[in-house]
Amino acid sequence: MKKAGRHFLQIPGPSPVPEAVLAATAQQVIDHRSPEFGALGTRVLGNLKKIFKTEHHVVIYPSSGTGAWEAAMCNTLSPGDKVLTYETGHFASLWAKLANRLGLVPVMAGENWRAGADPDIIEAQLRKDTGHEIKAVCVVHNETSTGATTRLKEVRDAMDAAGHPALLMVDSISGLGSADLRMDEWEIDVVVAGSQKGLMLPPGLSFNAVGPKALDYSKSAGIRRSYWDWSEMIAFNRTGYFPYTPATNLLFGLDKAIDMLLDEGLDSVFARHERLAEATRLAVQAWGLENQCQSPKHFSPVLTAVLMPEGHSADAFRRTVLENFDMSLGSGLSKVADKVFRIGHLGDINELTLMGTLAGCEMGFELAGVPYQRGGVDTAMRYLAQTGASGQH
Amino acid sequence: MKKAGRHFLQIPGPSPVPEAVLAATAQQVIDHRSPEFGALGTRVLGNLKKIFKTEHHVVIYPSSGTGAWEAAMCNTLSPGDKVLTYETGHFASLWAKLANRLGLVPVMAGENWRAGADPDIIEAQLRKDTGHEIKAVCVVHNETSTGATTRLKEVRDAMDAAGHPALLMVDSISGLGSADLRMDEWEIDVVVAGSQKGLMLPPGLSFNAVGPKALDYSKSAGIRRSYWDWSEMIAFNRTGYFPYTPATNLLFGLDKAIDMLLDEGLDSVFARHERLAEATRLAVQAWGLENQCQSPKHFSPVLTAVLMPEGHSADAFRRTVLENFDMSLGSGLSKVADKVFRIGHLGDINELTLMGTLAGCEMGFELAGVPYQRGGVDTAMRYLAQTGASGQH
Amino acid sequence: MKKAGRHFLQIPGPSPVPEAVLAATAQQVIDHRSPEFGALGTRVLGNLKKIFKTEHHVVIYPSSGTGAWEAAMCNTLSPGDKVLTYETGHFASLWAKLANRLGLVPVMAGENWRAGADPDIIEAQLRKDTGHEIKAVCVVHNETSTGATTRLKEVRDAMDAAGHPALLMVDSISGLGSADLRMDEWEIDVVVAGSQKGLMLPPGLSFNAVGPKALDYSKSAGIRRSYWDWSEMIAFNRTGYFPYTPATNLLFGLDKAIDMLLDEGLDSVFARHERLAEATRLAVQAWGLENQCQSPKHFSPVLTAVLMPEGHSADAFRRTVLENFDMSLGSGLSKVADKVFRIGHLGDINELTLMGTLAGCEMGFELAGVPYQRGGVDTAMRYLAQTGASGQH
Amino acid sequence: MKKAGRHFLQIPGPSPVPEAVLAATAQQVIDHRSPEFGALGTRVLGNLKKIFKTEHHVVIYPSSGTGAWEAAMCNTLSPGDKVLTYETGHFASLWAKLANRLGLVPVMAGENWRAGADPDIIEAQLRKDTGHEIKAVCVVHNETSTGATTRLKEVRDAMDAAGHPALLMVDSISGLGSADLRMDEWEIDVVVAGSQKGLMLPPGLSFNAVGPKALDYSKSAGIRRSYWDWSEMIAFNRTGYFPYTPATNLLFGLDKAIDMLLDEGLDSVFARHERLAEATRLAVQAWGLENQCQSPKHFSPVLTAVLMPEGHSADAFRRTVLENFDMSLGSGLSKVADKVFRIGHLGDINELTLMGTLAGCEMGFELAGVPYQRGGVDTAMRYLAQTGASGQH
Repeated sequence: MKKAGRHFLQIPGPSPVPEAVLAATAQQVIDHRSPEFGALGTRVLGNLKKIFKTEHHVVIYPSSGTGAWEAAMCNTLSPGDKVLTYETGHFASLWAKLANRLGLVPVMAGENWRAGADPDIIEAQLRKDTGHEIKAVCVVHNETSTGATTRLKEVRDAMDAAGHPALLMVDSISGLGSADLRMDEWEIDVVVAGSQKGLMLPPGLSFNAVGPKALDYSKSAGIRRSYWDWSEMIAFNRTGYFPYTPATNLLFGLDKAIDMLLDEGLDSVFARHERLAEATRLAVQAWGLENQCQSPKHFSPVLTAVLMPEGHSADAFRRTVLENFDMSLGSGLSKVADKVFRIGHLGDINELTLMGTLAGCEMGFELAGVPYQRGGVDTAMRYLAQTGASGQH
Repeated sequence: MKKAGRHFLQIPGPSPVPEAVLAATAQQVIDHRSPEFGALGTRVLGNLKKIFKTEHHVVIYPSSGTGAWEAAMCNTLSPGDKVLTYETGHFASLWAKLANRLGLVPVMAGENWRAGADPDIIEAQLRKDTGHEIKAVCVVHNETSTGATTRLKEVRDAMDAAGHPALLMVDSISGLGSADLRMDEWEIDVVVAGSQKGLMLPPGLSFNAVGPKALDYSKSAGIRRSYWDWSEMIAFNRTGYFPYTPATNLLFGLDKAIDMLLDEGLDSVFARHERLAEATRLAVQAWGLENQCQSPKHFSPVLTAVLMPEGHSADAFRRTVLENFDMSLGSGLSKVADKVFRIGHLGDINELTLMGTLAGCEMGFELAGVPYQRGGVDTAMRYLAQTGASGQH
Repeated sequence: MKKAGRHFLQIPGPSPVPEAVLAATAQQVIDHRSPEFGALGTRVLGNLKKIFKTEHHVVIYPSSGTGAWEAAMCNTLSPGDKVLTYETGHFASLWAKLANRLGLVPVMAGENWRAGADPDIIEAQLRKDTGHEIKAVCVVHNETSTGATTRLKEVRDAMDAAGHPALLMVDSISGLGSADLRMDEWEIDVVVAGSQKGLMLPPGLSFNAVGPKALDYSKSAGIRRSYWDWSEMIAFNRTGYFPYTPATNLLFGLDKAIDMLLDEGLDSVFARHERLAEATRLAVQAWGLENQCQSPKHFSPVLTAVLMPEGHSADAFRRTVLENFDMSLGSGLSKVADKVFRIGHLGDINELTLMGTLAGCEMGFELAGVPYQRGGVDTAMRYLAQTGASGQH
Repeated sequence: MKKAGRHFLQIPGPSPVPEAVLAATAQQVIDHRSPEFGALGTRVLGNLKKIFKTEHHVVIYPSSGTGAWEAAMCNTLSPGDKVLTYETGHFASLWAKLANRLGLVPVMAGENWRAGADPDIIEAQLRKDTGHEIKAVCVVHNETSTGATTRLKEVRDAMDAAGHPALLMVDSISGLGSADLRMDEWEIDVVVAGSQKGLMLPPGLSFNAVGPKALDYSKSAGIRRSYWDWSEMIAFNRTGYFPYTPATNLLFGLDKAIDMLLDEGLDSVFARHERLAEATRLAVQAWGLENQCQSPKHFSPVLTAVLMPEGHSADAFRRTVLENFDMSLGSGLSKVADKVFRIGHLGDINELTLMGTLAGCEMGFELAGVPYQRGGVDTAMRYLAQTGASGQH
């Protein structure tokens, strides 16, 4: 039985889809070879570049974000190539695992589940690689398992400082559309992204934004591929079409979602995320709980991962919240399973939905017998009231 | 530009429409003379009786609730007839005004915008009417302008005690589906209701539930009418059809909404409303503000009307909340215009939406410079956490 | 069980609702007192004037078209007033019946179920009324029961020729948006209309377009009314609001539907209807069947009513079509019950849907054992192919 | 500008999506790790087996059908493995091309774009392969480019007759849900399918149905893969979940679409397709045009590819139809580009939509100056009327 009222979907993605985007996806499917489709494809592919802040190519796959990771690697790297990874959390570790599966050789620069990637460590590793065996540096922009956002400009600077020619490949699956990402300015070679986070769409689309160096690599290098191959895709995309049947209805939604993001303005979107994230962190602090991310400069605008007090199960707490208050929170993954729960504050979200979310957490602590200090909701509310007055929203 | 995130529609109706109900209304229209329609009409008309708790007739109009008021009077009363009204607030006063327009003679039994109707006053008035000139007692079940719910059983008992044969006509536009209403058990002769409150539909449908005595009256008495006439309607309804084109798509939605209410169980629906209303009142109290309704036994499960501190504009406050937090609150009406704002907590609502709502109010006080005590949100949260544990929801 | 494929809803209204209009009606309801609503109301009320081709007022009711008839009479006429009617079919007869119920005195100028109203007859009747007891001439623009469209300009000219001051009141419930209607140019005083025909909406809204003379009448004359009263409605409408809760979601749809009509261009809309109607008539002729409307100048662009061969039941035929081909056709009403079936070709319709419709009829004749000549579909197809080439569509 | 009326989407997929399926996909996204999702996944995965008529595994990918081809090969074959293909048309040729890209060695058994695969040729080829170097026989069930349906049982029998142990891999992207497919009874090892054809969904999901022998192969053989890997997928599917974020909203739609198919009954679905296909072929014949498929036993229930008269452009014809009658027809692909147009008659389609479709073709011939015999529409109509009477639908 459907519970009364709106479900609070506060996992760090999929994020709630705006009504207008859902409606767009529910339009009757059209012929993907028609002039009407060509116009849609051209518009979406063009506008997507604004979201990635690139003048180059954005490739759209009917697939989950995982597929876009595979695509990024398949198109640019060859079996045996070394890739430098940095384990900022579960998703960074999955990338390394994927590299392994594809016959690449992942080299872990560092591991820290409580901060973003440290550019000094990356620089040091690259300096050691005098033979330039490392073909790509792979970092996660926003680590969805820990709530730590790596500063990509610092990574680029580190690579430049080391004078290393590796590709910079970035997983921004949960970053894009929520945290600033400047592909061209920061000289990122490949960005991997997905539809179901900051883009406010249902899951089912993923992206590769492809810079000129990566495109160049793809012509000579690569792993056996067909579905993920960039060349045919880019060729078809020139006129707004796709080499195989695209996920038309999700493209209808993407078209609408991009409009909404550009309408709000990317800077406003990012500021909104930052403000709601800060309110969340203030609540966590007031509760006397610990943020999984310990490095303030890496605090995520997308989600906040909260450490449970010793001896208390995060999953039991999440279950209490789901059953009593119909809210989904994110679980802790692998290393931090059952130790951490994650509050998503991304996508189509505003102050009052966040306040409902934080109240759901605070009431959940009470019901689940989790030790905490009162006042989290209150503190977040003060902050939002103060910053609301400034008219920044 | 659409603001990011979900709008909080916390006026005392229209209430937010569940996604599944909206989807139902968006189905392709069908032939209102087809067998398929007859089955729909039969099912809806049958199930509606469960909502009104009656074995008699429920008539559906394509109209606003105002129209159903007119229908109730047109079908049963004749020009010059006296009707006893009780001004519990703006909507009760509108009913008297309507009676005037229709050539009836409203007699105001009492006036109290801070409580439900007093049965003793009604009884006294009826006892005085030894000639039985009063043909109907008209009371508002849930007064949407003040948040006071009249105890209908007490009104019936008062009428019986007075041995008065007048019809009991009840406006339950904002009560039905949120506050218990037992048409047959309480011997109500006509219930007037609308779609956009507890029934969780968009506005556009209204109802007359018609008991045997009222139906009998309608055969001899009445004001000139055609659209509102019960007899043709009831005749067509027998096979699930309507004498004129019905609002088919709203009926699709009604069919779904009734399913959802019966699925949750009416008693659960009412308990949910009571609990959220109590949380709201605790917040208001903690803020040091006054409930427009001063009579605890009449506190409304549907909405809470809050008096602003002297010298502060309720409308300015509401504007602050709308602009800063994208929440619509109800305005004060006529006598209490700008002095009262109203928090709707009806229909498809749950704990976290209420918490967002209350947080929006508390932050709004801060931003609008309204004097208040902190702690309203906190108090509501404690109450919901305590009562949540009991599993009553 | 839902049959496979799209139902063909080819009754003369409700007509199929475009996907985009359905989607518009399925948006979350908003506060009908909010600035956002005021903007919607202002836009819709302004654009509606373009559809009625008037500079005066258009009033929107949450009601069926029947209600708007009642409104037109209640606001302008007083008990005992004579109204001249012309029985062009079932709906014209209902108007006279309604006048009776409201205490007016209908005078039937003429009766002809096989043509539009004859202006000469109207003129003659008016000339006889030297005392100007007739307060209104009531004609049906497009008679939905017979498929005859009265030429309104001729009626106006007849009234002018007779020098009679009566109001001209027009039922354009099934005409508006399908057949040209020029309220101001033709000096029509009141137009009655509905949402579910040429406006391509679900049923549930109705309209009164009100000219200055009618508005003037409404200030001194009229029948007791409240819901239907123009004055309060027009006063509220000035800022885009309504005196009682409007059917918000149908207004969302109306906003979209008007956009679509204006986008296509009213002249194109009317030409499209004329062309599809002509194709239908050619098919009927080829089948050797008779058009209920015998007067070519009154042929309707909205629907075609077809007489069954003697001894064959129209309703049995319609049932065969519904069961075998999932198409709804209109039934014959009152006098022509079971003798006529009606093919709707109005609203959101194009050539191929019409061809499917005509094929459904032709196959239905075969299955139901109705004597007919082959070639109807073929003939319609030739006509559409020839006229398609001219690029007029 | 959107043209008036419904677009006729008569390409051989994507096919028109039923309103109820579109509505299902437009529901708010849910947590793909929630109990609610687990129940959905379990139900969908279970019911899908009925559609494939298998007791084994069905794997769902967020991808186009092309991806599912790649998945089938990646999981079972190793670089250098020979695969026997049979070029029944464009899509069969793409499969061979894909095999090449993946490092496999396609061996073309036969080539015939005007019939289904010939089992004798396959048997002969397999008999020659005494060393069993051929690891898989890859056939297309319903060749979407030509309208030829290969009889899979005959292929299985041929393989058995040859005593060859190769896997039987079948592309049923456009067959599933329209043409009978009995995976287990016909001992098919892998079926590749997609969402946007007989399953009546928008594009974006694809499928691998996996038999025990194929699953066994996948444990030791295979090409480097991650996204497409069966093992992790099947492991997660056990409880209704997926190893990476699934396309949740398309799964909502799939759940609904399967319900509709099972509700109609697969046999009825297939019979409906056969009947509409026969009507189409009769029309083509009457027009004096040639079916691309010359082999009656291979005529497709899904689409009919029609050869244009010599010297006439199929694409010009299709453009005429699109511009004049708002209908999309399928284009000829590769070898038959501009020589063939394709009429899709699959998915959520019924008689009247087909009649509109055929009328659009016949009128298009007229407008585009294509030589043809009149009477196609008429002939189809006679056939449907005759067979309609038998109540088989």
